[in-house]
Amino acid sequence: MSPLMSLPHSAKPADSVPLRYGALVHPGFQALDLFGPLDALNMLALYYPLELVILAETLEPVSTIPPSKPDGNPTTFGQSIVPTHTFVNAPPIDVLIVPGGVGNRIPENIAAAISFVAKVYPTLKYLITVCTGSVLVSQAGVLDGRRATSNKYVFSETQIRPQVNWVPHARWVVDGNIWTSSGVSAGIDVIFAFMAEKYGEEVADTISDVLEYERHKDADWDPYAEKFGL
Amino acid sequence: MSPLMSLPHSAKPADSVPLRYGALVHPGFQALDLFGPLDALNMLALYYPLELVILAETLEPVSTIPPSKPDGNPTTFGQSIVPTHTFVNAPPIDVLIVPGGVGNRIPENIAAAISFVAKVYPTLKYLITVCTGSVLVSQAGVLDGRRATSNKYVFSETQIRPQVNWVPHARWVVDGNIWTSSGVSAGIDVIFAFMAEKYGEEVADTISDVLEYERHKDADWDPYAEKFGL
Repeated sequence: MSPLMSLPHSAKPADSVPLRYGALVHPGFQALDLFGPLDALNMLALYYPLELVILAETLEPVSTIPPSKPDGNPTTFGQSIVPTHTFVNAPPIDVLIVPGGVGNRIPENIAAAISFVAKVYPTLKYLITVCTGSVLVSQAGVLDGRRATSNKYVFSETQIRPQVNWVPHARWVVDGNIWTSSGVSAGIDVIFAFMAEKYGEEVADTISDVLEYERHKDADWDPYAEKFGL
Repeated sequence: MSPLMSLPHSAKPADSVPLRYGALVHPGFQALDLFGPLDALNMLALYYPLELVILAETLEPVSTIPPSKPDGNPTTFGQSIVPTHTFVNAPPIDVLIVPGGVGNRIPENIAAAISFVAKVYPTLKYLITVCTGSVLVSQAGVLDGRRATSNKYVFSETQIRPQVNWVPHARWVVDGNIWTSSGVSAGIDVIFAFMAEKYGEEVADTISDVLEYERHKDADWDPYAEKFGL
């Protein structure tokens, strides 16, 4: 994508922004939940000295392939990403991104991830979830008493943690230092909203233009809540 | 994302649609170019018995990390995907998806990929490119004399193959069995347009709703052509 556009003068200086990112992956994660936000950050990393670690239970590649198809037959259609660190040897990070996916319906798939979120959250500057990533982190208790949203098609999964004030109609929700987004593609909008607030509105616009992505800038834009009967 | 919605009655039967997909990756590919389309197909694979191979020069993980930053310093911010086959042992496929990315500006990075495209194209039912993936495949000669588009911010890269009728204003272009899209996010729109034509319009709408993705359905929608002075 280079030669790069210049960043606008309004861009915040590198010593004032979060630089150390981590992404948590678990078997059966949703690909776009993760790679939408990460590709926006891939571009931001051409302007700021960002660092990224990919965190998982082990260093084995982690597949998007869900444990089973609705008819019970396994699908083999998926992609595998390579972790850089385990939950045990993760370095300090400023921002943790947690995708959703069908894999997090199986408790043993995400038990280690939940424990990691509970442990690391007090050390984070920000926690960002996409889709049912919010359901995963809610099980670490970090959303209790807060407003949060999740995937609209499977919003009923939020029932697993009624201590959270789940918001059925929202593209994304910010409560304190936790940013939760609606399903899948909403992750792209939440990362740009985060980028706009932390690095500058024009920074987010510049990068979304280069990605040829038309941002939804209104956190209340959510036709899917209605579409899925919420 | 299950329990899944039922596919509409208008969905085309599995024996009439392309089922075998391949995705070509090279060092420095753009993450969203690839994972936008693939995640739409991940969902389609829950309804149709789709197969996917990830093709690269070797079986080593392939990183999105571009060879260098504009100031010459390497960035370490990226993600690695695991190939399933090499260009040499690739099984037969119906549809090949080719992402772009800064990596394809370095000839030795993509020489094997170009040879593979030249060899495999006559055996494909369809070729789909995202972003500067079209610039890559153009060097295999498969776009000569055809209409095609590419990333708008670096549209000048298309000059490398003037035998192609490059279209500067288009979200995507279809010419024969080759579908080329504009930059990065446009890959999501082209895969849904392809899905709509080959599997059914309502299939594409159902899946884009589940991904909470607002499709651009007009191939001529392209504010980025103007934004980047084309």
